[in-house]
Amino acid sequence: MNYSKLLLPTLKEDPADAEVVSHKLMFRAGLIRKVAAGIYTWMPAGLRSLRKVENIVRQEMDRAGAQEVLMPAVQPAELWQESGRWDYYGKELLRFTDRHSRDYCMGPTHEEVITDLVKREVHSYKQLPMNLYQIQTKFRDEIRPRFGVMRGREFIMKDAYSFDADDQGAEESYHKMQAAYTRIFERCGLNFVAVEADSGAIGGSFSHEFMVLAESGEDDIAACNACGYGANVEKAQVKDTAAKAEGDAPAAEKVATPDVRTIEEVCAFMGVTAQEVAKTLVFETDKGVVAVCVRGDRDANPAKVKNLLGANAAELASEAVVREVTGAPIGFAGPFGIKCPVYLDNELKGLASFVSGANEVDAHYRGIAPGRDFEPAGWSDLRFILEGDPCPRCDGQVVVKRGIEVGHIFKLGTKYSEAMKANFLDADGREQPCVMGCYGIGVGRTMAAAIEQNNDENGIIWPVPLAPWEVVILPLSDKTGETLATAQKITGELQQAGIEVLLDERDERPGVKFKDADLLGIPLRITIGARGLKEGNAETKERATGEQQNIALDEISAWATAWVKERRA
Amino acid sequence: MNYSKLLLPTLKEDPADAEVVSHKLMFRAGLIRKVAAGIYTWMPAGLRSLRKVENIVRQEMDRAGAQEVLMPAVQPAELWQESGRWDYYGKELLRFTDRHSRDYCMGPTHEEVITDLVKREVHSYKQLPMNLYQIQTKFRDEIRPRFGVMRGREFIMKDAYSFDADDQGAEESYHKMQAAYTRIFERCGLNFVAVEADSGAIGGSFSHEFMVLAESGEDDIAACNACGYGANVEKAQVKDTAAKAEGDAPAAEKVATPDVRTIEEVCAFMGVTAQEVAKTLVFETDKGVVAVCVRGDRDANPAKVKNLLGANAAELASEAVVREVTGAPIGFAGPFGIKCPVYLDNELKGLASFVSGANEVDAHYRGIAPGRDFEPAGWSDLRFILEGDPCPRCDGQVVVKRGIEVGHIFKLGTKYSEAMKANFLDADGREQPCVMGCYGIGVGRTMAAAIEQNNDENGIIWPVPLAPWEVVILPLSDKTGETLATAQKITGELQQAGIEVLLDERDERPGVKFKDADLLGIPLRITIGARGLKEGNAETKERATGEQQNIALDEISAWATAWVKERRA
Repeated sequence: MNYSKLLLPTLKEDPADAEVVSHKLMFRAGLIRKVAAGIYTWMPAGLRSLRKVENIVRQEMDRAGAQEVLMPAVQPAELWQESGRWDYYGKELLRFTDRHSRDYCMGPTHEEVITDLVKREVHSYKQLPMNLYQIQTKFRDEIRPRFGVMRGREFIMKDAYSFDADDQGAEESYHKMQAAYTRIFERCGLNFVAVEADSGAIGGSFSHEFMVLAESGEDDIAACNACGYGANVEKAQVKDTAAKAEGDAPAAEKVATPDVRTIEEVCAFMGVTAQEVAKTLVFETDKGVVAVCVRGDRDANPAKVKNLLGANAAELASEAVVREVTGAPIGFAGPFGIKCPVYLDNELKGLASFVSGANEVDAHYRGIAPGRDFEPAGWSDLRFILEGDPCPRCDGQVVVKRGIEVGHIFKLGTKYSEAMKANFLDADGREQPCVMGCYGIGVGRTMAAAIEQNNDENGIIWPVPLAPWEVVILPLSDKTGETLATAQKITGELQQAGIEVLLDERDERPGVKFKDADLLGIPLRITIGARGLKEGNAETKERATGEQQNIALDEISAWATAWVKERRA
Repeated sequence: MNYSKLLLPTLKEDPADAEVVSHKLMFRAGLIRKVAAGIYTWMPAGLRSLRKVENIVRQEMDRAGAQEVLMPAVQPAELWQESGRWDYYGKELLRFTDRHSRDYCMGPTHEEVITDLVKREVHSYKQLPMNLYQIQTKFRDEIRPRFGVMRGREFIMKDAYSFDADDQGAEESYHKMQAAYTRIFERCGLNFVAVEADSGAIGGSFSHEFMVLAESGEDDIAACNACGYGANVEKAQVKDTAAKAEGDAPAAEKVATPDVRTIEEVCAFMGVTAQEVAKTLVFETDKGVVAVCVRGDRDANPAKVKNLLGANAAELASEAVVREVTGAPIGFAGPFGIKCPVYLDNELKGLASFVSGANEVDAHYRGIAPGRDFEPAGWSDLRFILEGDPCPRCDGQVVVKRGIEVGHIFKLGTKYSEAMKANFLDADGREQPCVMGCYGIGVGRTMAAAIEQNNDENGIIWPVPLAPWEVVILPLSDKTGETLATAQKITGELQQAGIEVLLDERDERPGVKFKDADLLGIPLRITIGARGLKEGNAETKERATGEQQNIALDEISAWATAWVKERRA
């Protein structure tokens, strides 16, 4: 392809709103352009890379026996009402009415549509297992879209849904997808880990996230430094190691604490360490309001609160709700006298009594003892795991890394099939709900994650399988036109061999062409200059290693073809 | 692919809401399933055919030098306000607000997004010409979605936009697309014509529609029986042949016409023919309310009214507006005394005076003469062309055929580039607006049109280039399992040769397999039966011709491969 004809506008400046390197480079290399917050146009070069990710995904899904379908972006509310999600999905679900005032949404995911389809078309165990997937445009009305296509509102996702006759089958389907995902991200040339994850709003019994390791990742991953354990910190269990405190606690004593609110201020005023304080947080959930106590130096994990209660959502309570249950503004909650159930993190077992808020302004308690001063609704693992915590599986220690979630697989069980009555007749003629799994890959996000992981100060360094072009050929200007003619000849030979070539025949200085080739991150650069021509050589440079070689002109096409083919997915 | 593993549910019954054969057959053959009014899921077999149309379109667009991009489905209102279309696009434009109460729409077309992109990225004549296209999901909130994917609300379209430095360049770009479209529909195996068309809401100076000829088409095409002229009846010019009437008209006379409303009733009551009556219709347009008179046996053409006024929209006026300008309910409008400009169809020139409504209930005029009794705002071609009308280009006569619009190309001119300031600097350094063209193909509709044109009482008859599979292999059941083993061997050989094969290894009676193969419309059927096996033969049947042959088993793979490859696009 000839550069001068392409819409491939490169830029020196980062866009003002770009926080991460992939967003900056995708913009500067002319791969995407913003249309509105979190909404982008894929430019010609960007779309080429995107399609490469899509094709790898499609090939591996087909190989795993999944069937491709294409469901609509616009979904009728009825299906979401049937599953029960219409009411609690929240504002990320973009809802609207059509000209006849009927309710619809833009699909952020397709469990409802696919479950309804399978309910209508699958009636016998003989039709199972079945795995249906699509590569399709989704919309989530993110409150703060950011990082370019990494957390956009409109985005392209591969989503697959498996249907099995029983739990064992569902687990086999799950493991098949786990293997397919591993192949997909390997073929994309990514450094990734699969970690245990919380099932979130999708629901279901267990799940794994595929995380591309990168400092800019939005997710924290807890990994063991000894065994293979890895989990999203949302999900990672904290080992219950606290020994039950011995001895009696002193009587509870209310202390006036004017202008004391934060844990630091409480510790300083009361002369205690954060380890002796119970931090109390009030959560609103669809199972009611609850209070959660964790040690003063820990953070409560909403996902664990949600799972403990079997709730669909758990969020820190609003000021109004806090006032209702504590009788005081935010900052003075405590387990003694609060008007809601109180759950305690396991770690607090190590304290016979602790300091806590008094549910009134400018007052705290010293010597609050659970079981004596108040009855806990329960003890559980309720805090976020931290670097240095013991591994929940072995004697190792946890380290925390950052990652970008590019894939997520869920064993859903019968949540949707029961709600929507997607039943089949088993071999004995009994009606049973299908056992489901669902499996997502962010296609554009995978591409962005590849850039996060593969770049330097000069630009993108594409893994060969995702590069928009595999080879860039730079004829340097000369008066005879001989460099251009040679470059065109090599371009033709490489294209004949099935290699994707960008020919930079622009009338630009060598420096501009070199800079753009680096920024675009094309894996192999072939430069045709007047001096090299005289010597019968082309100069090659590998983008990833910087390695340069002089290759004889009559060998360059064969050499470059072999170089590319060795590195393809 | 093994039929028993596929989600490929065939049905004997037509769906209740299907009016046309393609809708019935796409449903019965398991190609699509309805999710909501005008919103469908593409099933595995349907998606395979859809992708084939997409690939032919993509190859021909690339070959014509167009560059593929991907624009978003969700578009910000600002862009539509900039082009001016936000206000007049009407209810087909699905509008909504996001969580921050900002206005958006689902893109029914992408002139605004692409013009904004080009405005930002193209600055010099050196970057022109440029043609950008996408294959993307669009939404139009049709008031009455029907005919399955042929007039759905969510649909897949290829839309391309060309940008040129001048009018001559724009016409070259237009003709390039016209040639590409011709190749596309030829490669799809369709019987089609390209006809002159009205530019509609897109605007622009001239346009052609690509029509697949089919009785079920929604469009009427006027074609000449002598020359190559063809046009949508919306657009087709009526030759102005009426000689100016000679002699004086009698004085106008008001006649009481109780309970007389329709043209037929007027003719019977007044003792005249419809040719002596001027039918008066009131139109609301964005350039004001106008009245249009055509002969009593003709119909007024809203597209011509719109074009005459240079308006963006022209619709028959509401009862309220009719009352306002005529002082009477609908049915009594006439040119004399009406409170709006009156335009007359050329044909009325042949009448010195005519019968018309009197703008009051139960009254008509006899002897109304234009120029004497009222001053026409203008004379023009304002009626629909009819079968038997003279050809506007030669001495031939017009015949009217029905067609399905599968493609539409427009020379837009500078309508959008001027409104949105998509300017470039020409060779002399002067700022000029880009001259645009836009070019659409309904991808799903093309597939449906292929079915409208290729079917019989047993089902679809796919043109080979669009068939979901090129060959279906039917092993008939036998106890030894030998037919299945042979079928599997041939399937493997054909797949090795790059042929797309559906192996119907279901445990079903031969009749069921034959019926499904016919319904699915797979071009070549290969049957492996016990008797044939003994004789060393497979039986082939061509779906299109019904021709059957016995081919030796050791030749069948090579024979079928050659058969398919000869018929590919």
